[in-house]
Amino acid sequence: MSEATSTLEGWYALHDFRSIDWTAWKAADDEERAGALEELHNFLQEWNVLEQNNEGSTAVYSIVGQKADFVFMHLRETLEELNALENAFNKTDFAKYTIKAYSYVSVVELSNYLGSGDGDPKANPAVLARLQPILPKSKYICFYPMNKKRDLSDNWYMLSMEERREMMRSHGLIGRSYAGKVKQIITGSVGLDDWEWGVTLFSDDALQFKKLVYEMRFDEVSARFGEFGSFYVGGLLNEQLFEEMLKL
Amino acid sequence: MSEATSTLEGWYALHDFRSIDWTAWKAADDEERAGALEELHNFLQEWNVLEQNNEGSTAVYSIVGQKADFVFMHLRETLEELNALENAFNKTDFAKYTIKAYSYVSVVELSNYLGSGDGDPKANPAVLARLQPILPKSKYICFYPMNKKRDLSDNWYMLSMEERREMMRSHGLIGRSYAGKVKQIITGSVGLDDWEWGVTLFSDDALQFKKLVYEMRFDEVSARFGEFGSFYVGGLLNEQLFEEMLKL
Amino acid sequence: MSEATSTLEGWYALHDFRSIDWTAWKAADDEERAGALEELHNFLQEWNVLEQNNEGSTAVYSIVGQKADFVFMHLRETLEELNALENAFNKTDFAKYTIKAYSYVSVVELSNYLGSGDGDPKANPAVLARLQPILPKSKYICFYPMNKKRDLSDNWYMLSMEERREMMRSHGLIGRSYAGKVKQIITGSVGLDDWEWGVTLFSDDALQFKKLVYEMRFDEVSARFGEFGSFYVGGLLNEQLFEEMLKL
Amino acid sequence: MSEATSTLEGWYALHDFRSIDWTAWKAADDEERAGALEELHNFLQEWNVLEQNNEGSTAVYSIVGQKADFVFMHLRETLEELNALENAFNKTDFAKYTIKAYSYVSVVELSNYLGSGDGDPKANPAVLARLQPILPKSKYICFYPMNKKRDLSDNWYMLSMEERREMMRSHGLIGRSYAGKVKQIITGSVGLDDWEWGVTLFSDDALQFKKLVYEMRFDEVSARFGEFGSFYVGGLLNEQLFEEMLKL
Amino acid sequence: MSEATSTLEGWYALHDFRSIDWTAWKAADDEERAGALEELHNFLQEWNVLEQNNEGSTAVYSIVGQKADFVFMHLRETLEELNALENAFNKTDFAKYTIKAYSYVSVVELSNYLGSGDGDPKANPAVLARLQPILPKSKYICFYPMNKKRDLSDNWYMLSMEERREMMRSHGLIGRSYAGKVKQIITGSVGLDDWEWGVTLFSDDALQFKKLVYEMRFDEVSARFGEFGSFYVGGLLNEQLFEEMLKL
Repeated sequence: MSEATSTLEGWYALHDFRSIDWTAWKAADDEERAGALEELHNFLQEWNVLEQNNEGSTAVYSIVGQKADFVFMHLRETLEELNALENAFNKTDFAKYTIKAYSYVSVVELSNYLGSGDGDPKANPAVLARLQPILPKSKYICFYPMNKKRDLSDNWYMLSMEERREMMRSHGLIGRSYAGKVKQIITGSVGLDDWEWGVTLFSDDALQFKKLVYEMRFDEVSARFGEFGSFYVGGLLNEQLFEEMLKL
Repeated sequence: MSEATSTLEGWYALHDFRSIDWTAWKAADDEERAGALEELHNFLQEWNVLEQNNEGSTAVYSIVGQKADFVFMHLRETLEELNALENAFNKTDFAKYTIKAYSYVSVVELSNYLGSGDGDPKANPAVLARLQPILPKSKYICFYPMNKKRDLSDNWYMLSMEERREMMRSHGLIGRSYAGKVKQIITGSVGLDDWEWGVTLFSDDALQFKKLVYEMRFDEVSARFGEFGSFYVGGLLNEQLFEEMLKL
Repeated sequence: MSEATSTLEGWYALHDFRSIDWTAWKAADDEERAGALEELHNFLQEWNVLEQNNEGSTAVYSIVGQKADFVFMHLRETLEELNALENAFNKTDFAKYTIKAYSYVSVVELSNYLGSGDGDPKANPAVLARLQPILPKSKYICFYPMNKKRDLSDNWYMLSMEERREMMRSHGLIGRSYAGKVKQIITGSVGLDDWEWGVTLFSDDALQFKKLVYEMRFDEVSARFGEFGSFYVGGLLNEQLFEEMLKL
Repeated sequence: MSEATSTLEGWYALHDFRSIDWTAWKAADDEERAGALEELHNFLQEWNVLEQNNEGSTAVYSIVGQKADFVFMHLRETLEELNALENAFNKTDFAKYTIKAYSYVSVVELSNYLGSGDGDPKANPAVLARLQPILPKSKYICFYPMNKKRDLSDNWYMLSMEERREMMRSHGLIGRSYAGKVKQIITGSVGLDDWEWGVTLFSDDALQFKKLVYEMRFDEVSARFGEFGSFYVGGLLNEQLFEEMLKL
Repeated sequence: MSEATSTLEGWYALHDFRSIDWTAWKAADDEERAGALEELHNFLQEWNVLEQNNEGSTAVYSIVGQKADFVFMHLRETLEELNALENAFNKTDFAKYTIKAYSYVSVVELSNYLGSGDGDPKANPAVLARLQPILPKSKYICFYPMNKKRDLSDNWYMLSMEERREMMRSHGLIGRSYAGKVKQIITGSVGLDDWEWGVTLFSDDALQFKKLVYEMRFDEVSARFGEFGSFYVGGLLNEQLFEEMLKL
């Protein structure tokens, strides 16, 4: 048996991808649409307040292509809050004009391949800030889930801790070379959803997503051990942009 | 031919995952909703009585994310009872406001890698209690189906009994280290459903699901031989919480 | 090139899995439901007469879980009869309350790994009875489709006839040890449907499905070469039970 | 780099599988159904005339099981004609009572593993007849798409021309042993649809499909290199049989 | 770690495949259809003007078979423009008569296996023309997404730069032998969509798609390392042809 990597967990995450039911939205009358927009407005406001109180964070982005029209990425202290949040949303009239596209349940995670040093890492404000991050308001988002492969001779979980540490270090170096260009939030989902990790990237230049993921693909940890799900990319939606998107 | 592991079976299990059709639920009038809630109430009561009589057990949990909104996990003495139960539910007006999401048919199973000793194991009250368990009312649930791999050199079913026993013992040690934190119910589904086993975990701390499943993934039996389906996580729904979830 | 196994074929088979559209069924009025039940009654009667005349056989079972609500397993002399039968069913009002779930087209098959001896095997009444079987009215049914694997070093079709014969003999011994407990009908579907074989098991004890399939999984022919599709299990539906299932 | 096999191409092919929306068909009134049948009649007539003029060919068959209710297999000189044909069909009232099930785009292909000899093969009337075939009116049809595998050591495209030629010769011998029993049309779809080839078989005895495909499966070219999609089987529909199928 | 190939990126691409909801289209009245066609007309005009101003390019093609009825392939300077474009389209009445079939998000890419030489390649007008191409108005289109495989010993990303360069050179030679017959646009989608590249081919002879892709399949880079998604083929739709397609 190989030694498991130690991890630290922070806020729970729910990525909630939805499409707009344009036919229903257009068939609604002005009053119905105004009511739905008011509900959306109230949610966005509420999430802002919560973020200012450091009780969670929510990012709202459009999604390009047919996979979805937008995503809410919610971070909250507990799974109950995420569950309550999605139920509250589902009960709105606004939700009636949306179609579920994909969702992902995970928890912010820091993998510790370097050893945690002394003391309680959660007492370290820098660590805590990474475990309970305020999501960036970058121009673009990119989300994809991933696994580490377990395929005959390419089995990540059969490697020694030392081998994994070495590969992750090289991997981290690539990530760090994108510092200032791409902000990366890793969420773990082993035991919570269908893939092992969710990767959410933020950048003001969408091309950096391609550059970063492509460069990493040549790194042994991705080349031999990375298994990737669907990729979702989109652009920031503040309240005004969301309303423009919905304006007929 | 490799020797098959002996198993003991107890109650049959039906995991019944459903989503709520919020649009239909909201379009219903107060009377229709009250009637549907009354049906739900009656089922929950009936299942409670049956559990108190030790004739079966039912767990009711919400599910986080878009995969489903809730799950009924039913344990019953016979397959007929499960079949009758789902048909009775399907005939209610409440069912009309739900959408099938996923189901799993299996039977509570104890694998005996250590030999069963003398006598009829089902005469042993401790064994019987594990075969006909009253499902915990923990705060959280986690369900996933799984196979043992049969892929070229990673073929569980071609290993000797001795090799399997050794690996399962190491595996069991991890499980035991979570005693008091995670309660695990294994149900077998070879010949009954699409995967070989269903794993249902209960805990008062959802993070323990991640910790347990992640730690096990480095264990050879999971690392080399585990194949996993979709993971569902959620929170306990008693009658009051279920009604709150449905309250508009 | 490896020598193909000789096979004997009997009646064609159509497994027709359907769900009930409970919302439509409940929305129908009493007269509509009575008319639909009358159609169902007439079909069941017709199939009984045909079975008594030894012109085919039909088994009707409920299915547990969300995959389907019931299955018609039809055996008929020709593919035309199966096609006519499904079209006739599709035209009924009863069909309007059902939703297609899955179907399987195959033909009853006896594999001859032992050599057929002298003469026309179909002149042998025992062989003929196995090629044109009257389906049991056991309490439970289990159906699954399967392939023999062709994966690099685990390629059934690259084995010599001698190797295949030896493995199938061991396999058959397990099957025979369940004689009296499980009745097995093998139908071949190479060139007819998406898997190579359909396996239909009948038993008065559903647990025997699990015991049999699990024990076989350790047998080399299954362990190395078996690929399995979805498993469907359910209970016998005679006319009375079918009506009870549909009674609101 | 391995030498590509030379190929000759003839008419383009569109296999158009559809189900009947029986609920809509039954809900239509007599006049609507008569109008739809008239449209169907006109298409069938038109396709007959075109076939008599040797400008293409169309086969119409029912499909057994839930995958589809019928298939139009069209051969035409150009892709535009196939596109125009499907659009014309989609605009009919008859199409309103059908549901798309599956389609396949390909082109009649002759693979030349033996060398083409002298001169323009298309000037050879026998070759031309195989490239622009009039589809048989056999009692049964069988369609399946397939690939040649590219999986590590089982990679068809990494074999030498000589190895491929040798295997295809053995393969061809099996095919020829079914001469008079099964007529085979190979259509190539590399660059046109999701699989590399479509195989359409015609026979007056459906069991020959099983015999042929099963025997070939032991042949190295199929055993090691064949990857198969879904199989569709059905029976001939002339105008009278089509109308009977639709008669309520 | 293997050295990543350098790439140059140009315009962003959105392939937007849609089917026509013929039942809705036929159920619309003349005025509704005229309004929808007017919207379509305005979009096509707008896209033409934009193309003439070299601010992007749009290709419009029908698709043969059931996968889709048509595709808009849009190239634009930014992801925002693509997102705005699809939202604008979704808000039209015309969109109401279409059904989403598939979409692909990528960016025009030039891979540089030969070294980029001196200076800024984007200052080179020939390079710039390839990064911001005006899409051909060829008679036929073919689109498919693809990956480079990472499967045990067939792992593209574990090869040395030298090995990759050598294979890509051979690959390029095949492509060049089709110069004048097939125009190829490669778009990269690592980090943007589910496959690593999208390949869009244009030709006045659809058979050249088959010839080209088939010939390449024997090339080691495709034979060992190519993984292919669905293939879409179709014919040019100018405004007149689009209206003919929709004319009832």
